[in-house]
Amino acid sequence: MRFRRISLTIGITLCALAALMLLPALIDLVDANQDWQVFLVSSMLTFFIGGLFVFSGIDLESSEIELKEGFVLTTLSWLVTAGFSALPFVGLGLGYTDAYFEAMSGLTTTGSTVLSGLDNLPRGILLWRSLLQGLGGIGIVVTAIVMLPFLRVGGMQLFHTESSDRSEKILPRSAQLIVFIVKIYVSLIVLCTLTFGLLGMTAFDAICHALTTVSTGGFSTHDESFGFYKSAPLEWACIAFMVLGALPFVVLIKAVNGRSSEVWRDTQVRGFVGFLAGVSVLLAIWLAETSEIEFWDALLLASFNVVSITTTTGFANIDYMEWGPFAIGLIFLLTFVGGCAGSTSGGIKTYRFQVAGLLIKGHFLSLMSPHRISPLRYNRRRLPEDVPFSVIAFLAVYMATVAFFTLLLAGLGIDLITCLSAAATAVGNVGPGLGDTIGPAGNFASLPLAAKWALSAAMLLGRLELFTVLVLMRPEFWRD
Amino acid sequence: MRFRRISLTIGITLCALAALMLLPALIDLVDANQDWQVFLVSSMLTFFIGGLFVFSGIDLESSEIELKEGFVLTTLSWLVTAGFSALPFVGLGLGYTDAYFEAMSGLTTTGSTVLSGLDNLPRGILLWRSLLQGLGGIGIVVTAIVMLPFLRVGGMQLFHTESSDRSEKILPRSAQLIVFIVKIYVSLIVLCTLTFGLLGMTAFDAICHALTTVSTGGFSTHDESFGFYKSAPLEWACIAFMVLGALPFVVLIKAVNGRSSEVWRDTQVRGFVGFLAGVSVLLAIWLAETSEIEFWDALLLASFNVVSITTTTGFANIDYMEWGPFAIGLIFLLTFVGGCAGSTSGGIKTYRFQVAGLLIKGHFLSLMSPHRISPLRYNRRRLPEDVPFSVIAFLAVYMATVAFFTLLLAGLGIDLITCLSAAATAVGNVGPGLGDTIGPAGNFASLPLAAKWALSAAMLLGRLELFTVLVLMRPEFWRD
Repeated sequence: MRFRRISLTIGITLCALAALMLLPALIDLVDANQDWQVFLVSSMLTFFIGGLFVFSGIDLESSEIELKEGFVLTTLSWLVTAGFSALPFVGLGLGYTDAYFEAMSGLTTTGSTVLSGLDNLPRGILLWRSLLQGLGGIGIVVTAIVMLPFLRVGGMQLFHTESSDRSEKILPRSAQLIVFIVKIYVSLIVLCTLTFGLLGMTAFDAICHALTTVSTGGFSTHDESFGFYKSAPLEWACIAFMVLGALPFVVLIKAVNGRSSEVWRDTQVRGFVGFLAGVSVLLAIWLAETSEIEFWDALLLASFNVVSITTTTGFANIDYMEWGPFAIGLIFLLTFVGGCAGSTSGGIKTYRFQVAGLLIKGHFLSLMSPHRISPLRYNRRRLPEDVPFSVIAFLAVYMATVAFFTLLLAGLGIDLITCLSAAATAVGNVGPGLGDTIGPAGNFASLPLAAKWALSAAMLLGRLELFTVLVLMRPEFWRD
Repeated sequence: MRFRRISLTIGITLCALAALMLLPALIDLVDANQDWQVFLVSSMLTFFIGGLFVFSGIDLESSEIELKEGFVLTTLSWLVTAGFSALPFVGLGLGYTDAYFEAMSGLTTTGSTVLSGLDNLPRGILLWRSLLQGLGGIGIVVTAIVMLPFLRVGGMQLFHTESSDRSEKILPRSAQLIVFIVKIYVSLIVLCTLTFGLLGMTAFDAICHALTTVSTGGFSTHDESFGFYKSAPLEWACIAFMVLGALPFVVLIKAVNGRSSEVWRDTQVRGFVGFLAGVSVLLAIWLAETSEIEFWDALLLASFNVVSITTTTGFANIDYMEWGPFAIGLIFLLTFVGGCAGSTSGGIKTYRFQVAGLLIKGHFLSLMSPHRISPLRYNRRRLPEDVPFSVIAFLAVYMATVAFFTLLLAGLGIDLITCLSAAATAVGNVGPGLGDTIGPAGNFASLPLAAKWALSAAMLLGRLELFTVLVLMRPEFWRD
């Protein structure tokens, strides 16, 4: 384990974070709000520590990352970045637990919050929350496309850009890929900002919400979240950009390069979009049948909330706790689903359900004809042999992790629905839970301190596809 | 598909059921209760229909069962047996929905009930409920040991008595094995009856509870269930027999044949007993720390309820809904666990968790050293290649089934905790759920009719390891 190599990367990340803190400092300075000093001090402190990391990490030897270093680097960089991202929240009066929770929720693009009275907060801190999600969104896409397939976590090797390559070094063409991804990501945010602005948001709201929509994060500048605007066009636009943020970025790159027909040919994209459409229509019919809501209004309400939860964004436009058990149960289940792999969204993700579906179908066929062997094919290619096991190990560990955090929260005396939905929403990086406390109309402020640390850990675990973090806890990892 | 062969077996089962109905008729006659007529009429009707099935099924050709017939026979015989087992309940005034629910809950050894005021019911009907669980218990052990490995459902081929044999005919030595199993089962029930009697139960209560303890069923003759007796020795004895009923019967056969050391060498037995002990002590410590209960009282309370839920028996001795979120959350999770394969218990079952654990461990190792291949070994033998996929397909379909029934019940307007726990307790064949309605102090009577049919279906699905039933719903099954 070459800690210098890890130290260097973390140091560079911290310096970038310090630079990012100057943006909210600037806007508070423009607004003549004294908070600009908080951001400036946080920035200087972060830059100083980041610089120390860089200096202690300078290494004239090979700059390639080995497999085990990859796991440590990925986990540590998210932990440390959240630690420093929390500084401005502390400077503005939050305790460090609340500040860390808010920062981790931002960076992991979860969107659970301990803050209320958002409408009256200075613009600097609102921008900071949105920037954290914007940064976390691009961070996870880069991690998911460049790092996780290399680490072969939870079946992500399926998306190895050169699937024939089995080298234990990161591919040199990563740099080029990262540039493409950043371009796409920034373009989406710009496009989203313009759309939101044209449809009636202020410039500031448009920027903040574009950052948290494309990153499927879900922080808002209003306590009412998207419900503040009461605008159907805005909500439909938001639906479109949440879906775009939850599509695989590699597929988006193909689309931009003129191969847009490949987007719809992608098995994961078809499954994901088809699922969203089906569930939205189902819920809309249910709402129209069981309440006073007209079908077309119900379709918008249903689509917005189904897309918001499934893409793991977590914007709200209504308190769906009032929709009755069927809708609540459905939304609880959607908390587990997630978007596509290689996107900004969390959760179990479409391709894992599809691979599990292939296995189940195969099992049915083998029950009927025990001697038939049918190879598993996914997305018009043969499924690599180790993918089914990776996917399955992921599913089992995912459920075990949610169960573990549910019990941990229950041990703190929190009611079962809050525990279950808090664990599921944190591990899935969704945002809101169920119940009066952490439901779409509530927030996480009143939870005990221990619960906030537990949920911060759950968010990180979920964000890094569980195994990236869990593998560090196995004694074998540290041997030899 | 030779329906004559299926018809013959179902006919024989119905005739046996008709004979069994004479027992409660006899006891009501002794008690001078008019209900004996209900049982006699039910018995005659069942015998008549059963006879018709036998006559229409007589077949002078091969008596061996083909693979596809195995699936149809297994599912159909449980459905039809439940249908006729419900007759006495109808005769005593229940609607057919309630009667079918109670009969299915009995035969699947679930133990959920729609009846209350048990203490004042005639002895005939109480005996009938216990007999149904006794019959269901031996029925599932025979199905699980003889039929399911042959059908290769959900990884049960791991317990194929001749693992090298891949023939598609049931082994001829099945008959001998069935005799062994029945001997063990009856001996356990007799032993349990004597123990309960010696420890203070009336002869009638001892017989009834022995039938529902060894079968891990959980029907009682008292509304308070085991809490009625307020006797620590009785509860410890019950714990012991619930555990015995949840052990693999093939291992018990070895023990009786003088190879008792093999019991403790069995990986599944070790894992199961170790799990029960660990969780019981954990819950006992929690109860002793957070309430006024002394540790040794807490240990009994915790052990009884942990063993009762995990073995999928479902006896209660207290309303654990008052133990707070941690205990409730733990008990909810235990609803999924189940006992050992090849026993009377339901749920996911120990060996599936162990196989999943092996897969997860293998995934961790392969993450750290991508080029190492480590073959999976279970119970000192190499795991057959198709077992991991079968187990995994089972786990995924199990969770999907619970989710499906949760949503279905929620659609009927039932609150989410009741829906979730009702679905989990039915699919796991456990018995009680959570909440005021279906918790340990409540019953299922007040649920809507549709919910009772849905839960009856869920109980059957869970009892027959899901795939035995689900495979019938695939169009490919009926082709050719």
